[in-house]
Order: sequence, then C-alpha cells, then structure tokens
Amino acid sequence: MHDFIIQSVSTSDARFPLPPGAGSDSIHETAEYCFAVARLKTDGGLQGTGIVLTLGQGNQVVCKAIELLSERLVGTSIEDLMADFGRFSREMADHPSLRWLGPHKGVVHLALASITNACFDLWAKSRGVPLWKLLLDLSPEQLVRVLDLSYVEDVLDEKRAIDMLREKQASRASRERILQTGYPGYDTSVGWMDYSDDKVRELTKCALDQGFYAFKLKVGSAEESRDLRRAAMLRELAGNDKTIMFDANQHWNLPDALRMCRELSKFSPLWIEEPTHPDDLLAHVELSEAIAPVKIAAGEHISNRVLFKNFLKSSALSFIQVDCTRVAGISEFLTVSFMAKLFNRPVVPHVGDMGQMHQHLMFFNHIALDHEVAFLEHIPHLRKHFVHPAKVSAGVYSTPQDPGASTDLKVNAEA
Amino acid sequence: MHDFIIQSVSTSDARFPLPPGAGSDSIHETAEYCFAVARLKTDGGLQGTGIVLTLGQGNQVVCKAIELLSERLVGTSIEDLMADFGRFSREMADHPSLRWLGPHKGVVHLALASITNACFDLWAKSRGVPLWKLLLDLSPEQLVRVLDLSYVEDVLDEKRAIDMLREKQASRASRERILQTGYPGYDTSVGWMDYSDDKVRELTKCALDQGFYAFKLKVGSAEESRDLRRAAMLRELAGNDKTIMFDANQHWNLPDALRMCRELSKFSPLWIEEPTHPDDLLAHVELSEAIAPVKIAAGEHISNRVLFKNFLKSSALSFIQVDCTRVAGISEFLTVSFMAKLFNRPVVPHVGDMGQMHQHLMFFNHIALDHEVAFLEHIPHLRKHFVHPAKVSAGVYSTPQDPGASTDLKVNAEA
Repeated sequence: MHDFIIQSVSTSDARFPLPPGAGSDSIHETAEYCFAVARLKTDGGLQGTGIVLTLGQGNQVVCKAIELLSERLVGTSIEDLMADFGRFSREMADHPSLRWLGPHKGVVHLALASITNACFDLWAKSRGVPLWKLLLDLSPEQLVRVLDLSYVEDVLDEKRAIDMLREKQASRASRERILQTGYPGYDTSVGWMDYSDDKVRELTKCALDQGFYAFKLKVGSAEESRDLRRAAMLRELAGNDKTIMFDANQHWNLPDALRMCRELSKFSPLWIEEPTHPDDLLAHVELSEAIAPVKIAAGEHISNRVLFKNFLKSSALSFIQVDCTRVAGISEFLTVSFMAKLFNRPVVPHVGDMGQMHQHLMFFNHIALDHEVAFLEHIPHLRKHFVHPAKVSAGVYSTPQDPGASTDLKVNAEA
Repeated sequence: MHDFIIQSVSTSDARFPLPPGAGSDSIHETAEYCFAVARLKTDGGLQGTGIVLTLGQGNQVVCKAIELLSERLVGTSIEDLMADFGRFSREMADHPSLRWLGPHKGVVHLALASITNACFDLWAKSRGVPLWKLLLDLSPEQLVRVLDLSYVEDVLDEKRAIDMLREKQASRASRERILQTGYPGYDTSVGWMDYSDDKVRELTKCALDQGFYAFKLKVGSAEESRDLRRAAMLRELAGNDKTIMFDANQHWNLPDALRMCRELSKFSPLWIEEPTHPDDLLAHVELSEAIAPVKIAAGEHISNRVLFKNFLKSSALSFIQVDCTRVAGISEFLTVSFMAKLFNRPVVPHVGDMGQMHQHLMFFNHIALDHEVAFLEHIPHLRKHFVHPAKVSAGVYSTPQDPGASTDLKVNAEA
C-alpha cells in the first residue's frame, strides 16, 4: 500500500439553501444546511474531505477552529497518523488552550470532528477501499488504536474493546450478507415542521410507494393540537404495520414533555426523539420510565462519549442517535457504538452528513460489533452536491463501493 | 434615572501574558489569560464592558461569535432590554442557527456570557450604582425578569423564584452588615502546578501573613507522589486550623479519581475540585459518596443551568463553582444561585473574571438569597489591567463602590 504525506490543510464554508420548509423543526429556523469542510492535501494528489453540519451563521466560526486545531497535521504520513489515531485525537481534544472552549463540545469539538472525518476519508482512499471495508479489514488491535477511550475506561478500556471485536469475529461471515442486501433506511423528509398537512400526506404516500417502512414527523409546535392532529394523520396514512417516530427537537421542558409524550404515545410511535434539553440526563430517565413501552431517542446534540456513557449507564435512552458530525468524528462515533453494544442499545445515527459516512458505519457496526440491523435516517436534500451520493432505493441504502468515506463534494458545491 | 440607547457593539481580543508558572495546572498549559470582550457604546457616551475568560488561541473565535450574536442589540434602550432580559437571553441562546453549535455550551455560550455581562455593567452604570446594589434594589419581580428559567421549571419557576426573594426580604438588614465587613477570600495563586515546592512554601507563608485562611493546591501531576508530597506540605504549612483544597482540573478518569481522592482525603481538604471530566455526572455522584466527609467541588466547566440542575438533583457536588464567564453571564449565574439555595449547596464561584463581577454577586447571594457566607477565590495576576481592581486585603474582598460590574479594562490593556 502507498503512504501519503499531508502537505496542507484547508477549510471551506460550504452552504446549501434548502427548498422551502425542508429542514424546519420546532427550534431551528433552517433555511440552509452548511458544512464546515476540512480538506487534507497530500504529496500524491490524493485528498481527504471531512464535513460537519451547521445551520448557517456560525459555519465560518467552525472553519476558523479547524484552522487553529489542524496546524500540526502538516507533514504527517496518513499511515503513521492512523496507526495511533486515538492518541492524536486525544491530544487535539486536549489542546492546551482550545480545550478551555469546550471541553469536548461545541465549536472546537465540531472542528475536531471535521478534521477526524477528513483523516478517515484520506486513509480509506489511500488504501483504495470504502470506509466500511477499511474498518472491517483492521485487526482488533489496529481498530482500537483509532479510539480515544480516556474518561470512559470504567466501562470500556482497550482490552475490553479488543475482546468485543474478537468474540464476534467467527460469526462475521453470516452478518456480511448485509453487504449484498443493503442497509434499511427511514425517511425524515416527509414530516418537516413547516410542511402543510397536505404536503406531509403526499410525501408519506410517495415514500410508502418507494418502499420505506418508517417515517418521522416533527412535533413541538406552538399549538399542541397541531402536533396531535398530524400524529394521528401519519399513523392513519402509515397503517398499523408501519413504523412512525416523532421528533420534538428539544422543544419541551420536563413537565410539558411528560404531558405531550403521554399524549403522543397513543399513536404508538417507535420512539419520541429529543423530547427536551439534551443536557437534561435526569429528565430523559424520568421520561423513559413514564412513557414505556414507547421509547426515547436522542443523540444529535450529545457531544461526546462521556455524556453518552452517562446516558447509557442510567438507561436514559433506548435509541442512541450518535452523529459523527457532532461527536469527534468517526473515531468517537465508533467508541460510542462499542459502549452502546455493551449496554444493549441500538445505534440509529442522526445524519448530519446526510447519511454519507453513516452508511459505512452501519455496516461496520452490524458486521464487526454484532449490532442488530436497525435503520438509517435518510435526508435527500443535498444529494446532488456529493460526488458519490448515497444510493437509496426501495427504502434501502446499498453498499457504497467507492474508495473513501463518501464525503467529497462537487467542486462547484463549495463557497 | 437616565436611559441610554445602545449604538454599537464591538469586541476586542485582550490577551495578558502571565508570570512564569502562574495559571498552570494538570490540563492547561496556560501562558496567558485572555478576555473576549464585548463593549456596548451608547448615545450618552456611557459604555458597558463584558468579559469572558479563555486561555489564548480561540479567543478570537469567541470574539467572532460575539459579533454574530450581538447584532440585534443595536438601537435598543438598556432599560427596555433589562426589563425583560430573561426573554432576550433565551432568544439569543436559542438563535435559530447558532444554537446548533451548542446548544448552551462552548463558544456560542461564552459569547452570550460576554454580551450579557456587558449589558449588566451598562445597566448598573446607567443607574450610577455598583452591580450588587443594582441587583439588591430590584423588586423580586424585576429581578426574576432578568432570568431565563426555561428547562429548569421543574425545580425553579418564576413564582418560586419570586417567593424565595420575598421570604428573605424581612431578614435582609441583618445580612447587609457584610457590606461593612467585606467578603472573605481564598488564595488560589499559592499552589499553581508548575511552581516548585519552595515557591509554594514561600507563597503560602506570605498569604498566611496577609490574613488568608484558605489555600488551594493544584494536583493531577504525571507523578502521583508529587501530588501527595505537596499536599502533605501544604497541610503542614497551613496547620490544622486552616482550610486547604485540592484541584485536579479534570485530570483523572473515574478509577484514578477514586484512588487519588481517597489518598488525598488523608490531608483533610475541604474539597477536591474537578476530580474528573465535567460531563461525567455519575462519576461525581460516585466520588461524592466514596470520599465523604471530604467534598467534591466543580463548576468552571459546567456550561449551563440545565447541567447544574442535574448535578444538584443527583447530589453530585457539595460546592457549586458556577462562573459567570462560563454560563450565560450574570443572568444564568443568578439562576444557578437560586437553584443551589433550593438544594442547600453553597455557591463558591470559579473566578474566570478574577473575582471582579463575582465579588458583587457574592454580596447579592448572601443578602438577597440568604446563601451562607463562604469565600471567594482570589487570583491577583491581572489586577493591574482593571480600571477598578477588586480590593482584597487581610484576605477579605471589600465592597466595591464604583458604578458598574468592575469589568472595565484599562485602554492600553486591550489588543
């Protein structure tokens, strides 16, 4: 295999206007999706591209943090870097002055995520394989070396992580069949907050026709009656054999969340997502107990493995929606996936990357860690901007075959 | 009283080199303290100055976020703004696109803190009174209007907060005596990590002579024997009648923290500060139980009221070190102080402002909320840069008398 030296790191502030109403929810007035892009250029002409999602203003702040954090990458060989990436990730996360701005959350952590994702993309490209295959082909020892397990050793240390991979190696072949069939998806784009009832109805019918079997509706309106009306409508449209989920995007305080989750439970959703503030661990515990067997999902705003460890240890969540564009990239996503497996919780990512990297990671999680097959969120609005957009048909993500992490953006897509 | 219209908001990236070794701890290589400054200029020539602390690189990222967040302030009257500041704070914290970068943590929250602190400084100056007097002179209803209680209503809503103030109003006079005697301080600057044993010895003796009765030592060295040697030394120097505290600055994972906190407990510290990662709520619960009667303190990296609510509800901390340069400024500091009182926990701030604003807030907390008199951290390194540096003598902060929040920096102090 050929090694490459990173010669420069650049960033770009890529912004994509959304169609009217798309991306809207109870909290964010989303008119555009933006990527704070980290790009690694090498001596061989090969480039690594990392992305994290933001919602507009502030994207340039993340780009600035990428510049500050990534200086030390220049001159490093990608193989040397990835042979001990866990240590490198920790050093970046514990940057002697930037750490103060988190630690391990907010703008500096998003910057680390983008850089990390660029490193993995470059590594997979340099080996000429898609990310899922790169990860599956590493030995257990090599794989665990890309993880920073600091502060979670009480539940997951290196030895335990290696043992987990080894225990599941013999049975891998049976799970590799999924590479032929693809990974199931679910459609978030039918139920944006600002879509009219008619539009939700029309899009849901269309997604049903395409073969999706799971649908998500945004809730947390100023008018609670609107939430309940639309929830009833979605259940009726989907029928009792399909799966529906509701997503409140942190809209409610605890008393309102308890009341509204009980109301919405009547429509038998699989989960209610982000019912309240993502920092409110105890509220999630209380809600999980109050609305069982309906389940609580969250993760798109849970910033790091230490927080996920706390959510897992306290049984606060049933679905772990970790996002490799929120935690410290692919590396910390994997750490959280290991911990979720230990606590027997499915990983169902939020796709700040529009599913581009997460499709790879779902194959890895199933095959290497024996995570049960769940489904992966699908948001189609940016697909035209990717060089290799995820291929989703009949409600299923097919296995990506191009080298890398599927993060390359078309040249004219970037600012 | 005269009202003023905010005519412009500007920021500056103010950096102050520290003397060798000062500010050093187990995690941060601190060579400079920096303030991301927000400055409000008004039609009357009066200015409000807000500050938050950072440790160097990244200060300009916070300044950029201040610019993005503060646009809407221009043209507002300070009295109108402060008459409903809680709503305003919530709207800024829930900015439709910048919220994504937190929420309520990291760079965007630091920016909100600096802006908020500038608003309170301007408000106090416009009324010609020091911050503590401004706050004490507000009616309970007016005071509670400066708070954003969203997401903490399950423990503190407006009615409860107003009741708390009313209940304590009759007994205020007895507590106002502290305005004559001043507020006790403790000295952090004797025990920085990189100071030699000899220097710690010399500084501790000097602080004892000055009248301080409480001293803090940084721990969390690479060599654990060094921590134990210096802890023993400080206890011997201080004698058994003085108070000592140890501060690990998040250095240990949970197993190491359990072991080291048990070892350090032998020297009878009042508290052990930041033993592990600030996001690890459950680790703090476990540590608090394991090392009682020695207590756990933390807060300088606990970003918001929702997190503090969780730490309080789960009895994870005995001392609440909330810092108005970490949470959303003076407003969220007050919210946390209300909650801490409800849970009967002392507020002992970390002083990212070098004690300048917190001296005012300690007088308010004692007089209005009946918080017991604790002590306030004292870090002297930047005092020459303030227009009105805190006056600390014989180990006591005297009551500030100049109008405002004591945040004005000398003109030549800023970049």
